[in-house]
Amino acid sequence: MASAALRPLCLCWALGPLWLCWALGPAAAATNTNILLLLMDDMGWGDLGAFGEPSKETPNLDQMAAEGMLFLDFYTANPLCSPSYTPQDIVGGIQDSELLLPELLKKAGYTNKIIGKWHLGHRPQFHPLRHGFHEWFGSPNCHFGPYDNRERPNIPVYRDWEMVGRYYEDFKIDLKTGEANLTQLYLQEALDFISKQQASQQPFFLYWAIDATHAPVYASKQFLGTSQRGLYGDAVREIDDSIGKILKHLQQLGISENTFVFFTSDNGAALISAPKQGGSNGPFLCGKQTTFEGGMREPAIAWWPGHIPAGGVSHQLGSVMDLFSTSLSLANLPPPSDRQIDGIDLLPAILQGKLIDRPIFYYRGNELMAVRAGLYKAHYWTWSNSWEEHSKGIDFCPGQSVAGVTTHTQEEHTILPLLFHLGRDPGEKYPLSFASEEYQRAVERISGLVQQHKAALVPGQPQLNVCDQAVMLSLSSLPALPLRLCYHPTLRAEKLPKWMELIIVEKLWLQKWSLDFKSCSDKWIISVANWSLGTNNLGS
Amino acid sequence: MASAALRPLCLCWALGPLWLCWALGPAAAATNTNILLLLMDDMGWGDLGAFGEPSKETPNLDQMAAEGMLFLDFYTANPLCSPSYTPQDIVGGIQDSELLLPELLKKAGYTNKIIGKWHLGHRPQFHPLRHGFHEWFGSPNCHFGPYDNRERPNIPVYRDWEMVGRYYEDFKIDLKTGEANLTQLYLQEALDFISKQQASQQPFFLYWAIDATHAPVYASKQFLGTSQRGLYGDAVREIDDSIGKILKHLQQLGISENTFVFFTSDNGAALISAPKQGGSNGPFLCGKQTTFEGGMREPAIAWWPGHIPAGGVSHQLGSVMDLFSTSLSLANLPPPSDRQIDGIDLLPAILQGKLIDRPIFYYRGNELMAVRAGLYKAHYWTWSNSWEEHSKGIDFCPGQSVAGVTTHTQEEHTILPLLFHLGRDPGEKYPLSFASEEYQRAVERISGLVQQHKAALVPGQPQLNVCDQAVMLSLSSLPALPLRLCYHPTLRAEKLPKWMELIIVEKLWLQKWSLDFKSCSDKWIISVANWSLGTNNLGS
Repeated sequence: MASAALRPLCLCWALGPLWLCWALGPAAAATNTNILLLLMDDMGWGDLGAFGEPSKETPNLDQMAAEGMLFLDFYTANPLCSPSYTPQDIVGGIQDSELLLPELLKKAGYTNKIIGKWHLGHRPQFHPLRHGFHEWFGSPNCHFGPYDNRERPNIPVYRDWEMVGRYYEDFKIDLKTGEANLTQLYLQEALDFISKQQASQQPFFLYWAIDATHAPVYASKQFLGTSQRGLYGDAVREIDDSIGKILKHLQQLGISENTFVFFTSDNGAALISAPKQGGSNGPFLCGKQTTFEGGMREPAIAWWPGHIPAGGVSHQLGSVMDLFSTSLSLANLPPPSDRQIDGIDLLPAILQGKLIDRPIFYYRGNELMAVRAGLYKAHYWTWSNSWEEHSKGIDFCPGQSVAGVTTHTQEEHTILPLLFHLGRDPGEKYPLSFASEEYQRAVERISGLVQQHKAALVPGQPQLNVCDQAVMLSLSSLPALPLRLCYHPTLRAEKLPKWMELIIVEKLWLQKWSLDFKSCSDKWIISVANWSLGTNNLGS
Repeated sequence: MASAALRPLCLCWALGPLWLCWALGPAAAATNTNILLLLMDDMGWGDLGAFGEPSKETPNLDQMAAEGMLFLDFYTANPLCSPSYTPQDIVGGIQDSELLLPELLKKAGYTNKIIGKWHLGHRPQFHPLRHGFHEWFGSPNCHFGPYDNRERPNIPVYRDWEMVGRYYEDFKIDLKTGEANLTQLYLQEALDFISKQQASQQPFFLYWAIDATHAPVYASKQFLGTSQRGLYGDAVREIDDSIGKILKHLQQLGISENTFVFFTSDNGAALISAPKQGGSNGPFLCGKQTTFEGGMREPAIAWWPGHIPAGGVSHQLGSVMDLFSTSLSLANLPPPSDRQIDGIDLLPAILQGKLIDRPIFYYRGNELMAVRAGLYKAHYWTWSNSWEEHSKGIDFCPGQSVAGVTTHTQEEHTILPLLFHLGRDPGEKYPLSFASEEYQRAVERISGLVQQHKAALVPGQPQLNVCDQAVMLSLSSLPALPLRLCYHPTLRAEKLPKWMELIIVEKLWLQKWSLDFKSCSDKWIISVANWSLGTNNLGS
């Protein structure tokens, strides 16, 4: 297979972390149930005490599991934060034609807030507040970079429409010590939002997509050095502590029985960053960026006191895409009828302990790499990473090597897929014999599922693969029309970089924005320095 | 290092699973607390739901952990069932000079029973009832073999002094289906013993050393095919169910608050038997027979309602040897004063949450392979297994390969030990840089501990390394003097094998046993067939 086949090319169901997809009818649910989704960044299946992390430093998440339901076979839609290899260079983003969960919930009276990473586009048309959210505190991208790079500005941080600063500048991350108070900010935002919603007696959807466990990993001063696991563990401990506070807040406000909470992660632990900046995928093979279990199986917990029986354990094959359908079901909303939805409503599994027979498809780019049905997983392609990368020390499977499986060339197995039994062999080490009856039976079933899947597949248009570093300016911070751009006293026009020119031209002309210079000088351009400080003097 | 250095040679502290060793004074404990030790065979750290096994099929053990205390850093004394590579060929065993826990408890009025595998010698002088136990139902060795081998009889099973049959004959194990009801027998034995002791109001020590998870793995019919994990999981499920019944029995009899229960395993999962017959070591490196974490870190749970706070988690570095000291402490008995004891009393860790700073020594044979102090582990030697074995498909670290660590030659690092930080790197994949300050500090500390250890070490005499296949006859079933041997009508003298001649000669002359032929024919020899059937007609 040419490497081009693994280029970013987003199919409908593989796009965002949790927005698209529905298959079954909604189950019975309370009216106006609040929905709280806690989405971690690069946290692995094995990072929680409840999932066997040997330091067991997540008492709050473990308690959440003890009071709720553990999902042990829950998957992400793609083994990357955003289904692309270079999200910071992307000018694409979520299309208006896509129906996002908050857009639908809004119609049912929900107030929607996103706290943390958006990752579905940086430009104004992709702004979360244009896609159903009422409030935002966070960033359009990871905090990992650029870091004070002369060619590109640091990633901006927003409050709603306004850019309120940038990582490393206004929102400090000390790359040497790992100190940053971002998780505390995200925690406070969540607590405040929940309080406000409780006071107004309005249902809410809160999407808490924090990123302290994505390299460069960070934690607040009070958590630094407190974990057996080093800085990564400090970050996990702070998140665990924060989630404990959020759940306690719900209980203290008396709304825990009316709030459905789901915890999971966006992909497996990034073993390329281990051990200092990467987590654990427990007993599973490889990590982020691969379609082995370590790359795509996620820790997952559902919590809803009074509804979910305490101490539940589910082996329902679940996908982060199911949270779309499940949330609609919780809100008593019908699924969109104008499109095919891949996710399913998990409420029957969560509330009644049912097991819905459905496959899991493992994609890398637009290539169907593997399929899980029941306990069997068939690999149609195997690949960890290239020899070229590997020779430079980039290793998606450090310390692991399974002959013919963790290959550094893209190996095709479409005729005779490699088959594993994930119950007996969760680590994908022992492919079943091609000649066995068990192999024949399982592959026959999976082949049928693949045929059905491919026949029903409506390929989406690529949404994130147009690369232009100019996007790093994140003009999504610009307010609605009319736009007022003011001269800044520190402007030094000779320093204006090419990318800013491009942005200005695009915004003003291609997108037909109008300008209001009434209270400004006639200089319509602003300095890089000013952009770096925020958008306060850009507001309309 | 010559391979001879890894020959079985038992040092005092490395001998049996849990008999020898004491270091600190006893902590306060209830008088006459019953002691129940549940020792698994080849069960790995990652085999329980509470320790992150993805199928999470151990609800009773998980509940035991939720009601008691999890030990996450608990070790066996040796990465083998018995510290020898070929226990079935051993004529040695536990010496009279060793003080075993039941011998000491007996003096305090305890009734002691062993159910399951003894593994400290097959011959009469090593019989458990000669070493402090009042009762025994089980076997001197594993059920793994021999299996209907013409050269050697199958392993015998005993009730107290009497051999009541043999594996594969009277105690069936269907090697094809894995069906065997042994765990049910061991369960019933435990329930009956506990009931009897409760009725007589006598304190008891019950050592439940079962072996369903040692290859060839087995389970009762009602558990076969019930696990996601295959036959191995069926065995684990049956054990889990049995332990649930034992704990419930204690509660129903009203003695749970007076019974200290400890669950652990004898060594890491035997990955050479995986995936069908071997368990999981979770995120740890390699398995049984190695001194990597997968070989020696064990699942461990302490349970004692009303004394141990529910849901406790301990990072106390513990050793199976500590159960000797802890049990004495529970019985308010002083430690033996005539010898050095390596184990410590864990009660301060269990009841008061204290952390006692002590190292863990990892031995393989008589070679100190590695040392753990705090979160650091220094490897002085690394070895998985030989290239010769490996080339035959014997792999102690399947799917795992860490350059310079999982070596197939015995690599010496005594000058510059390989150092790992087990908090950041539980999988022992990233040795610390020799040049780092952290390395210098940690190795300096560990070197001091090794020096102390070696200075205080009193090497024991090898107790298990005299090999003679004649021992398979297990004459420990013979009663006390006088011995009566009777002619058996099916005797066919021409079939008498060499090993039987040796045994007879040894028993009669070397050990100066006397014979009583009064009620027998003058034929003093008996047939192999008869031995295979039991000892009933050999009783005095």
